Amino acid sequence: MACITLLTDFGLKDGNVGVMKGVIHRIAPATRLIDLSHSIKPQNLYEAAFVLNRSATYFPEGTIHVVVVDPGVGTSRRPLAARIGPYYFVGPDNGVVTRFRDSAILKGWPIEFFELNQPSYWLPQVSDVFHGRDIFAPSAAHLAIGARLEEMGTAIHDPVELPSPKIIRKGNLVVGEVIYVDNFGSLVTNIRKDDIGTPREVLVRIKQAEIIDLVRTFGEAPEGTLIALFSSTEDLIISVVNGSAAEQLGASESEKVEVFVKD
Amino acid sequence: MACITLLTDFGLKDGNVGVMKGVIHRIAPATRLIDLSHSIKPQNLYEAAFVLNRSATYFPEGTIHVVVVDPGVGTSRRPLAARIGPYYFVGPDNGVVTRFRDSAILKGWPIEFFELNQPSYWLPQVSDVFHGRDIFAPSAAHLAIGARLEEMGTAIHDPVELPSPKIIRKGNLVVGEVIYVDNFGSLVTNIRKDDIGTPREVLVRIKQAEIIDLVRTFGEAPEGTLIALFSSTEDLIISVVNGSAAEQLGASESEKVEVFVKD
Amino acid sequence: MACITLLTDFGLKDGNVGVMKGVIHRIAPATRLIDLSHSIKPQNLYEAAFVLNRSATYFPEGTIHVVVVDPGVGTSRRPLAARIGPYYFVGPDNGVVTRFRDSAILKGWPIEFFELNQPSYWLPQVSDVFHGRDIFAPSAAHLAIGARLEEMGTAIHDPVELPSPKIIRKGNLVVGEVIYVDNFGSLVTNIRKDDIGTPREVLVRIKQAEIIDLVRTFGEAPEGTLIALFSSTEDLIISVVNGSAAEQLGASESEKVEVFVKD
Repeated sequence: MACITLLTDFGLKDGNVGVMKGVIHRIAPATRLIDLSHSIKPQNLYEAAFVLNRSATYFPEGTIHVVVVDPGVGTSRRPLAARIGPYYFVGPDNGVVTRFRDSAILKGWPIEFFELNQPSYWLPQVSDVFHGRDIFAPSAAHLAIGARLEEMGTAIHDPVELPSPKIIRKGNLVVGEVIYVDNFGSLVTNIRKDDIGTPREVLVRIKQAEIIDLVRTFGEAPEGTLIALFSSTEDLIISVVNGSAAEQLGASESEKVEVFVKD
Repeated sequence: MACITLLTDFGLKDGNVGVMKGVIHRIAPATRLIDLSHSIKPQNLYEAAFVLNRSATYFPEGTIHVVVVDPGVGTSRRPLAARIGPYYFVGPDNGVVTRFRDSAILKGWPIEFFELNQPSYWLPQVSDVFHGRDIFAPSAAHLAIGARLEEMGTAIHDPVELPSPKIIRKGNLVVGEVIYVDNFGSLVTNIRKDDIGTPREVLVRIKQAEIIDLVRTFGEAPEGTLIALFSSTEDLIISVVNGSAAEQLGASESEKVEVFVKD
Repeated sequence: MACITLLTDFGLKDGNVGVMKGVIHRIAPATRLIDLSHSIKPQNLYEAAFVLNRSATYFPEGTIHVVVVDPGVGTSRRPLAARIGPYYFVGPDNGVVTRFRDSAILKGWPIEFFELNQPSYWLPQVSDVFHGRDIFAPSAAHLAIGARLEEMGTAIHDPVELPSPKIIRKGNLVVGEVIYVDNFGSLVTNIRKDDIGTPREVLVRIKQAEIIDLVRTFGEAPEGTLIALFSSTEDLIISVVNGSAAEQLGASESEKVEVFVKD
């Protein structure tokens, strides 16, 4: 059974996610549908890119990831699909897949992009404002039942790029920033485990706070303690045990984070 | 595989939606279950009616739409089912289906209503406060596996009516109102594309704001611009590009909207 | 088709619930996945225990309930599974299953607990911070496709206990407390229908408010009335008709509730 995931900024109130699933079900009734998130902040491509990249590879090979955060709907922005190693991506060409593509490059995976331009794979009537329903849902469904990207569109080599904030290294200092705030109020940074390695000592600085050494998991420090650790996808995160670092520090996306390492 | 959608005001925290799905799965394990919305404002029949009507026909023929917004649960209000063209409706008899029924009449679809009154299609024990679980979920499940409405209830001809606010025409002026605020803060009005046609000039007035001419889609105007356009279901909506019209105008349901057209 | 339910405090934004489903789907593609709730307040075992207990038995026999509210992830807290009558439980050993276990004891159901300690049923790489993905999702999936708990772990007899607040009886007075606030702002108490029986007169007192006699359902009193009644799972609840008792009374969990009964 093929698997399609859905990642949008549609929220769950208006019925739009359900409608996309109805459209998919009409074409591909035997497909597994899994919600990745529909609570991306409106038009926030960075959040969607982050969630896609950290989640995509936990799904079976052949899974089709549909990502619709689409401020450019109905304009000249292209409908896009991609084959990224064993996974598919379907959505507007807005850079939301850049981060996942870059991770795939590091793995040596083959990557191909296609502009979706064959309306026979879409709903008969395409609105100017809801391509999730009219183009991307049916395209994903056709992929799920065996259509080939080569039939559905034309290969392209210039997908839109969404630049990720880069870390800066100065001697034993690594400077990054908060790129995502999660459900628990943890501050996820763009500093990765590989960027730090396993030094003898670590000092993390954010706003006025300094955190000495990393912990391995939340329960290693008393409730209320500000801690730094690696997330399950190996991002450096700053948390408060059974609390919210975002609230306690008054910090959110783009906040600077400094890490001093001493081997 | 039959398809059942669920539309309620239960929220997603308490487990009640999950319980309805458990009840359905016991009876009809091979059914596709799709959430339409569970974030309808408590007891708000108008929101539910709006979401049902704009979504219902994107699902496969035979789909059973279960709508449970039920302030009258346990009173004399009847449990209702309907066959509306190729779709089914199951839920309390409170007018939530009126709008969809009216759309179906315009299409010339056959429509039949039934009072569900055969407890053999319900859970053995029916509470006074959760008919979604005890009556509507099992009824939908039985429909999905082939039961006929004629066996499950008695035909009726007087379902409860929920009146929709009507537009008023005065010469080249169309007066309507906001009937729904969506996830992006767009103000959805009860003025339809058919009500305006394609005039040479249009002026939309809401509160102190005037919007000259409609755009086709969001990306046609700079970020922050107040715009008017047709939604994917051809309702006139008022939006702010990458922003919230509801917030910017301080407007919500029932706000008056005037459209001046000039051919 | 086996059925797995998911109950967590992960929220729906970050993609973690979707990732758990992806992991399950890889192992057990033909399984029904049903969300019970992902909006449990962070780290709130009491809410999760309440939702699990009131929901669990509406699912088909053999259903696997996965409950991951896990402040102790990565510490010495054990991964747990249980066979409770015809149902399975999988999750951290933190007492979240105590309440359901106690209900099962009253029914005379057989109950067995197991420490999950066979990594061959987990993901190959287990993080310190996301056992929902790495241990509990794959364990549930293996159960769904026929693995036996005896192979997956070791029988234990000392699962962590989460004490429920008990009611106090003094003559014709029953004293309990609010244990949950639901989506509609109803205050759910730990006083059960069996604790009160069907007396001739009842007086419910909470904060400054007194409620004389119980109603059977919401629609028996005018909009805005403060009422007391039994929920669909036979808990005494305090509600406002088409309103929020939590808001009107300024009450939440732990608030004292007194019931005077007169036969």
